[in-house]
Amino acid sequence: MSATDPTIDPKTKSWVESANGGSDFPLQNLPLGIFSEAKGLRRPGVAIGDYILDLPAIAEAGLLDGEWLEDLAQPVLNAFLSRGHAAQGELRARLHELLSDERFRDDVEPQLIGQSEVHMHVPCVIGDYSDFYVGIHHATNIGKQFRPDNPLLPNYKYVPIGYHGRASSVRATGEPVIRPNGQRKALDAEAPEYGPSRRLDYELELGLWIGRGNELGQPIPIAEAAGHIAGYCLLNDWSARDLQAWEYQPLGPFLAKNFLTSVSPWVVSAQALAPFRKAMPGRPAGDPQPLPYLDDPADRAAGALAIQLEVTLTTEKMRAAGLAPHILSRGSADAAMYWSAAQIVTHHSANGCNLQPGDLIGTGTLSTDSGDGLGSLMEISNGGKTPLSLASGETRSFLEDGDEIVMRAWCEGDGAVRIGFGECAGRVVTSGV
Amino acid sequence: MSATDPTIDPKTKSWVESANGGSDFPLQNLPLGIFSEAKGLRRPGVAIGDYILDLPAIAEAGLLDGEWLEDLAQPVLNAFLSRGHAAQGELRARLHELLSDERFRDDVEPQLIGQSEVHMHVPCVIGDYSDFYVGIHHATNIGKQFRPDNPLLPNYKYVPIGYHGRASSVRATGEPVIRPNGQRKALDAEAPEYGPSRRLDYELELGLWIGRGNELGQPIPIAEAAGHIAGYCLLNDWSARDLQAWEYQPLGPFLAKNFLTSVSPWVVSAQALAPFRKAMPGRPAGDPQPLPYLDDPADRAAGALAIQLEVTLTTEKMRAAGLAPHILSRGSADAAMYWSAAQIVTHHSANGCNLQPGDLIGTGTLSTDSGDGLGSLMEISNGGKTPLSLASGETRSFLEDGDEIVMRAWCEGDGAVRIGFGECAGRVVTSGV
Repeated sequence: MSATDPTIDPKTKSWVESANGGSDFPLQNLPLGIFSEAKGLRRPGVAIGDYILDLPAIAEAGLLDGEWLEDLAQPVLNAFLSRGHAAQGELRARLHELLSDERFRDDVEPQLIGQSEVHMHVPCVIGDYSDFYVGIHHATNIGKQFRPDNPLLPNYKYVPIGYHGRASSVRATGEPVIRPNGQRKALDAEAPEYGPSRRLDYELELGLWIGRGNELGQPIPIAEAAGHIAGYCLLNDWSARDLQAWEYQPLGPFLAKNFLTSVSPWVVSAQALAPFRKAMPGRPAGDPQPLPYLDDPADRAAGALAIQLEVTLTTEKMRAAGLAPHILSRGSADAAMYWSAAQIVTHHSANGCNLQPGDLIGTGTLSTDSGDGLGSLMEISNGGKTPLSLASGETRSFLEDGDEIVMRAWCEGDGAVRIGFGECAGRVVTSGV
Repeated sequence: MSATDPTIDPKTKSWVESANGGSDFPLQNLPLGIFSEAKGLRRPGVAIGDYILDLPAIAEAGLLDGEWLEDLAQPVLNAFLSRGHAAQGELRARLHELLSDERFRDDVEPQLIGQSEVHMHVPCVIGDYSDFYVGIHHATNIGKQFRPDNPLLPNYKYVPIGYHGRASSVRATGEPVIRPNGQRKALDAEAPEYGPSRRLDYELELGLWIGRGNELGQPIPIAEAAGHIAGYCLLNDWSARDLQAWEYQPLGPFLAKNFLTSVSPWVVSAQALAPFRKAMPGRPAGDPQPLPYLDDPADRAAGALAIQLEVTLTTEKMRAAGLAPHILSRGSADAAMYWSAAQIVTHHSANGCNLQPGDLIGTGTLSTDSGDGLGSLMEISNGGKTPLSLASGETRSFLEDGDEIVMRAWCEGDGAVRIGFGECAGRVVTSGV
């Protein structure tokens, strides 16, 4: 994507007024998602200002053309995203034209639907969801709680650590967070008990949507990896810390995580993010260089994403009192990620594992190295030892019923138009089982 | 399934002669699978003797009727299995009639195809594949290599330990095993290297196919769990031990496993296995009883499966010399499983995690407590320290290129007709990347 890509030109404005005033969704963003109206079918749309543009509707009106046209009649984006960046770029260029050129306004405007009137869905059928651990400050903070002198394990700076998560329980923003039951064992107890988790937490992550896949046995070289990523979203890896502590050895987290994973519903494309790429942070002196299969000059020069991240908490009592959400953290993805998105994709396929269009990959929790940029309550409350205080007079070590977590992300600066990701929200409800 | 279920009556024979002489697939088995002929479409079939009966063909001939009829026109079994045991039982009863009553022979026989003429596929679209660790002797054997005095972790006898695996790389028997590349670090090396695995292994497991699913947030009670299992298969959890040792902390195995998982292609139903159920082995004195959510009298009385298991190895040199396969192990699933299939399903959903029709769940490696019933080379060669000797004069600690692993399983005894699972086979090829 060249710097002169007209779809990111900051001077061009949309005839959709609400797209031009600092919205998450200006003309320069154009993220795809899957929506439905009440009782309506699921179908693809693109976000513009406060609206979503109904893509099958403008296709039917004869305003779109491309080999990929039939893919937009699907209720999920898998087929369209499988075509790779070229098809994404073609659709993006045409949407940019339709939404900026006044000549198309009369034909296009009737196909805009208010975002508040639609329900958003997970944009793809997820064949596999895997989750990484590339947030080095998170890994260090968590490691310190167990091994104060030696928080990072020896493999961390060589291996982009990852594991498989649950695809069936990935849901779009707004899905209630049903407090999970499970086995939890107090440190001084002889045996575990089964019951509702008492240490329910969130984890702030980015999600990568895979576009083009690879065949089984055919690794994706690092120089080609970025081309396999269709776009990004926010991801909340809800976690039950008490279940996790008891179950995770020796095969890793399982029921502590697979009860729900929430994502923001928009696929923010690589094209839209191009102006916000920057060099990977240099590795501290003494750290090993990435092994050759993970090392690429282009990725070193532009593999980091300057995505701003924010998490807020609102309790039931705060809501009732009309108090503003409590800001739990603010940080930036590029300050948190030890491994790039391309390194994640290449490592994941390095053994021949096949990634498929619509696969979802989490980065792992993105904490900065500062106390106001921590991506989980486990870190903020130091494992529950230092509860945080809220304006309502309440305190929190972990999430209580009625608590709502909202994640937001955006990119700005460098003369580019600000773009946003939309929300990834979820409110905790009692298990009721 | 009552003991007088006519479909397991040992006295009834099929008019398909090859079904009656100790075949894996007598009239009492009738496992479903998905097959295709050269250039043909994938479709469901049932195994009988040396043949597969083409289900869409006999449906078209008007020989089948049921609410589930349209599901048999699908290229996967997900929709049919989602209907649960009742639909499976109806189809099974009708197939038993068609294949035993000579009056149907003229109509049915033309729709039999030799199994050697078809290609078998993974029978379902797998939404999620998860893998457990219920083989207590395997867990003990592996644990001893790291912690001789304390091989089992404290959670093992309370938690049916499991984790998520890779759905995209599950393949049916016969798929070549491409030796994976990955990071491996010698104990005395300063840094890891990237290259082909030198410690490639197999793991003998059973697979459970989920029939009816559950909704997110709605755990499956233990008394209902067996009704969610459509059937069983053999599963080979191919494992790269060197990659595993270096990568697995703290989130569990990932690239060491997700390059390939092989399954036998037939869904051996709960109905066919009913005569081979037996009481769970009593827990040794001192072991805790299962927590109430995992404890059920019916499961205690009949939750174990008397499935005989066998693994053989044939090297390239053995094949060239016409030598018989080397028997690596013989054992029985009921002697290996500390937790039942029902306990696995209930635990998996106990936090509200939703299982979906067509999900695959591995039991974990099934080793008996005897030296001739070990389910992996890691155990047989004691981590590579005691290579095994073959009739070809070769030795093996781990798998070499050209080696073929074949797994077989069957049930027999108690006056019931012997039934088999078919093969789960795979031959190692060089990575070529």
